[in-house]
Amino acid sequence: MAVNTQSDLAETNRLEAFSDGVFAIAITLLVLELHSPELEEGERLWPALLDEWPQFAAYLTSFAILGIMWVNHHSMFRQIQRADRGLMFLNLLLLLWATLLPFPTSLFAEHLKDDSINANVAAAVYSANLTLAAIAFSLIWWYVLRHHLVEHEMTKSQTRRSVMRYSMGTVIYGACIGISFISAQVTLLIVFLLALYYGFEQLRTRD
Amino acid sequence: MAVNTQSDLAETNRLEAFSDGVFAIAITLLVLELHSPELEEGERLWPALLDEWPQFAAYLTSFAILGIMWVNHHSMFRQIQRADRGLMFLNLLLLLWATLLPFPTSLFAEHLKDDSINANVAAAVYSANLTLAAIAFSLIWWYVLRHHLVEHEMTKSQTRRSVMRYSMGTVIYGACIGISFISAQVTLLIVFLLALYYGFEQLRTRD
Amino acid sequence: MAVNTQSDLAETNRLEAFSDGVFAIAITLLVLELHSPELEEGERLWPALLDEWPQFAAYLTSFAILGIMWVNHHSMFRQIQRADRGLMFLNLLLLLWATLLPFPTSLFAEHLKDDSINANVAAAVYSANLTLAAIAFSLIWWYVLRHHLVEHEMTKSQTRRSVMRYSMGTVIYGACIGISFISAQVTLLIVFLLALYYGFEQLRTRD
Amino acid sequence: MAVNTQSDLAETNRLEAFSDGVFAIAITLLVLELHSPELEEGERLWPALLDEWPQFAAYLTSFAILGIMWVNHHSMFRQIQRADRGLMFLNLLLLLWATLLPFPTSLFAEHLKDDSINANVAAAVYSANLTLAAIAFSLIWWYVLRHHLVEHEMTKSQTRRSVMRYSMGTVIYGACIGISFISAQVTLLIVFLLALYYGFEQLRTRD
Repeated sequence: MAVNTQSDLAETNRLEAFSDGVFAIAITLLVLELHSPELEEGERLWPALLDEWPQFAAYLTSFAILGIMWVNHHSMFRQIQRADRGLMFLNLLLLLWATLLPFPTSLFAEHLKDDSINANVAAAVYSANLTLAAIAFSLIWWYVLRHHLVEHEMTKSQTRRSVMRYSMGTVIYGACIGISFISAQVTLLIVFLLALYYGFEQLRTRD
Repeated sequence: MAVNTQSDLAETNRLEAFSDGVFAIAITLLVLELHSPELEEGERLWPALLDEWPQFAAYLTSFAILGIMWVNHHSMFRQIQRADRGLMFLNLLLLLWATLLPFPTSLFAEHLKDDSINANVAAAVYSANLTLAAIAFSLIWWYVLRHHLVEHEMTKSQTRRSVMRYSMGTVIYGACIGISFISAQVTLLIVFLLALYYGFEQLRTRD
Repeated sequence: MAVNTQSDLAETNRLEAFSDGVFAIAITLLVLELHSPELEEGERLWPALLDEWPQFAAYLTSFAILGIMWVNHHSMFRQIQRADRGLMFLNLLLLLWATLLPFPTSLFAEHLKDDSINANVAAAVYSANLTLAAIAFSLIWWYVLRHHLVEHEMTKSQTRRSVMRYSMGTVIYGACIGISFISAQVTLLIVFLLALYYGFEQLRTRD
Repeated sequence: MAVNTQSDLAETNRLEAFSDGVFAIAITLLVLELHSPELEEGERLWPALLDEWPQFAAYLTSFAILGIMWVNHHSMFRQIQRADRGLMFLNLLLLLWATLLPFPTSLFAEHLKDDSINANVAAAVYSANLTLAAIAFSLIWWYVLRHHLVEHEMTKSQTRRSVMRYSMGTVIYGACIGISFISAQVTLLIVFLLALYYGFEQLRTRD
């Protein structure tokens, strides 16, 4: 069970290639949610574009999140030596939430400036999508540890720390669901800063 | 004819990579069929989203089906050692039905709540698409066996069982075309449960 | 110049992978040009779908053409041992016409049933796109022969025959531009049959 | 730090594969911004298509730019032997501007024929996107040199020349932002000619 045969590697590679493809497509499809402003006769383009800032803020945030997810997926799978069908299905679960993201992104962009509760609901739906993705990441890691699919031996404390790390995302994005009902715009800012933080934190600790 | 040269492998690999690409794109494009609800002045977002449940149900089902198709394709091609042009064209036939799926998915989502026969027709079109994909899978497997493109010798009973297995999908999805005219919603539920069942069944028997 | 180093191979591989990606995406995007029929109150879905047959015919034809183009690209590049920048740019020219195809496809689908000259113009634009793709294929092959990028020595008659083969497509699709002005529907049928013929002919002669 | 282990190579390969995927998708998505002209009763298709020339000019230009960016990315990464997380994030920055391009492309196409300042603003937004992409290219190269991630030793003058080369794009596209306010159409022409020039210049100097 523990021997790393070439066929196992092929399995992991094809899984990674498929996931890379899905991340690459999802990140590129985000642009289709950006729409040129419809101008009335004599209306200026520049202020109309500025007025669309929620679109661009949501685009940028989702791009950052999918980018980080791809980097994380990458880091995680470098430590995985074998892929079995259970892993394939949990990975599909993660990809489900990744591919869905353009939908709440456009929902968020559309309602970010609403005065009503709709802005909060849109933010909560967006945060829920991120929370579900974080849960899927945790499930994959838990499964991988439980079925000894990692490449190297890990000490108990290393294992605990790695599990903590992945649970973190679930807690933080879960909290964002609550924050959504305080302010949609603050939620977007927090989510964006989190993506930047994760990026830099990884820069610092992992190389 | 039976020697597995490096060029044969390259051929299979490029075929798999192309197919993986198509599956990854088709599964990611599904999200483009999800539309934000258009709200009237003062309308609430949350009930409007809940009201769109057929969209999400159809999205989830098609995602599950394309995911399973990818896993199946993967399992099948791991047993194939050589790709010739006949296999390439039958594979294109399968990809035709896979890439078409977003269309009946959006048709299904749009008409699932109709009271009229239109809901049944949409369900039948959706089921027909799945049946055609199942037939393509069977054709590929039949072609592969007939032209001795599998990696290993199979006993007669193994061959028969593997052919049965792939024919199963055709029969079940074919039956769904009929069930569509009883209830569109039951059809969607059956198709979704089938995808889950296939997922778990493979988890159990194949590793 | 003639030595096949590993770096040359890497170059060809990345070129093929990029092209495969573009073909896979273009073939999958075709589905976005299929639109659910907009029904009036009480209108039946089934006849409305049947009424949309030009959409499906154009979809099927473009799918077949892009599929064949992928197979052809595949066959051609298996014979090429090195990629230089000239080849990369000619390949981009081919990809330009491949990625553009969804546009004339939707134009064709929209106007196929028009009684006016518009149906003929749409068919001519579609045929012109195919002609330009065929010319790009010829240019690639001519460039490859001229710069000795093929894997093996070819006799003069083999060279001539291979050039003829690729020029064929240009002549035939060029003729379709003319036929478009006789009948748009006949043009679509011819183009579809040609794709099938190319498929089968390759089945017969190349394995 | 300088040893080129297999895992470093794997890292670069997956980075390149992901980037190739994103470029391939972005270049193929451009076609979705082309819309069939909506004809009034009895209107001719051919003049309506000709009237849409800004769409096609913008499509062609963006296709050329993304194609050149892919070739450049390719050339750059062939010289890079290791990828660390810093490089991954700078690469994501570049991909951000590459995936965004379809949006200013459609903005440009829509307003190119406007008599008002809107045409200039659209051209400036388009040029700004290109400038940001050029800056990302420069940042990557600067980072790669600073962290000794290149494959081979470079002399000081080689280093200076390579940095100059990449800074060039930033200056030229930056100048296009200014030119946009003189004439949107001239800007499009310059950008297109630049893409051609870069293509041919590379043909000449790099093989």
